[in-house]
Amino acid sequence: MQVELHNGERIDQLYSKGIQIIQSKDVFSFSLDAVLLADFVKVNGHKTRQIVDLCSGNGAVGLFLSEKTAAHITMVEIQERLAEMAQRSIQLNELGAQIDVVNDDLKNAAKYINKDSVDIVACNPPYFVNYEDSEKNPNQYLAIARHELTTNLDEIVNCAAGLLKMNAKLFMVYRPDRLTDLLVALRAHRLEPKRLKFVRPRQGENANMVLVEAIKDGKPNGLKVEPDVLTYDGDDYIDEVKMMLYGSGK
Amino acid sequence: MQVELHNGERIDQLYSKGIQIIQSKDVFSFSLDAVLLADFVKVNGHKTRQIVDLCSGNGAVGLFLSEKTAAHITMVEIQERLAEMAQRSIQLNELGAQIDVVNDDLKNAAKYINKDSVDIVACNPPYFVNYEDSEKNPNQYLAIARHELTTNLDEIVNCAAGLLKMNAKLFMVYRPDRLTDLLVALRAHRLEPKRLKFVRPRQGENANMVLVEAIKDGKPNGLKVEPDVLTYDGDDYIDEVKMMLYGSGK
Repeated sequence: MQVELHNGERIDQLYSKGIQIIQSKDVFSFSLDAVLLADFVKVNGHKTRQIVDLCSGNGAVGLFLSEKTAAHITMVEIQERLAEMAQRSIQLNELGAQIDVVNDDLKNAAKYINKDSVDIVACNPPYFVNYEDSEKNPNQYLAIARHELTTNLDEIVNCAAGLLKMNAKLFMVYRPDRLTDLLVALRAHRLEPKRLKFVRPRQGENANMVLVEAIKDGKPNGLKVEPDVLTYDGDDYIDEVKMMLYGSGK
Repeated sequence: MQVELHNGERIDQLYSKGIQIIQSKDVFSFSLDAVLLADFVKVNGHKTRQIVDLCSGNGAVGLFLSEKTAAHITMVEIQERLAEMAQRSIQLNELGAQIDVVNDDLKNAAKYINKDSVDIVACNPPYFVNYEDSEKNPNQYLAIARHELTTNLDEIVNCAAGLLKMNAKLFMVYRPDRLTDLLVALRAHRLEPKRLKFVRPRQGENANMVLVEAIKDGKPNGLKVEPDVLTYDGDDYIDEVKMMLYGSGK
């Protein structure tokens, strides 16, 4: 399958996965966060039928997930340019029957996806609070992907809670810096955190990412803090991470 | 200094510290939690003048802290038998000028300690929710130390917040199982979590304890998830932990 590449775009292939993804430094490239999130998501065999990827960017998380499930995947992305990139990557991988893209604000997700109908929501959201004086990327595509300019944690979690069936699961990647915001928001929206996994460069260093699994209407507590993911070996990514990130595309 | 030992009591000395502690299998023995909490507390030189050890049990945390600060330490313990054990350990170590023990419910702490006057609160609280059907230790001393029979997380955090000065710090040890309860309660009482440290037996295993530092009226977020503490080497505690726990007393 051939698709058109726009100016500045490239196709990356993940070494260990068969997925090709259209990337662009000027617009959006997925990062380790997306790969680790997709790895962290637990699919429940044939019982998982409907997956939603919120804040899907260029579609990396949903594309990776298509390798571990036959469930239908809906990506929701507010930025037209990114949603359109994701759409071309879906074509490139001939995944049009399994994945669709909604190009809209996640506040409107219920227009496209029934409430209480989804088995898994995955989300790699913008991490940074939109303080008036906080420095933002002058590139608007990247600024929206990183800062809470068009949405925020509470809205995202509220949207996920509305879409999920009872006892269905949200998987998110976030920054440890805002772990309290995250756990407070999840509980406030009836999503009980059940599994946490911290990612740190090396043992003996502070965590720089956190992965969380939460269950809609789950009983309080019973949270497991699982073994860490270490991403570096000396000054270099560990081999597994290198293959996931750079594969044959670089 | 000699003190009377009651039936079933023994004196433990920490190998690496000069502190002797009266212990009793039938009433209360401190465990690794207390040692790790005392290690986790950061004293701020001469600026730390008043420390409170809530749910102090037989006084282990406060006694350990006396080794790293000249600050005055007040222990608050609801169980008379344990408060009295702590009092004898204070005598044994000739620390009567630095440490005192309040034998009362922590709800009454403000009767003994001025509000907004404390630089550090340390707390190794009961961990288990008092569900009606949860199995409790038939030994009432141990049941009260482990289950939320006479107090609960929200009361403890509320008490700590009331005692602490603005920008002063709470240090707690808790179970990861209830991390959401913990972070939600801290934020609800204006204690912003700033430092988390997970304790796990070995790398590659789930955490079984968590240490948290929170700042009264601290800005939201900015939480650091520090390197883990690993407590086992194979089937045995690591040497540092063995020395802390068993020392010359066993």
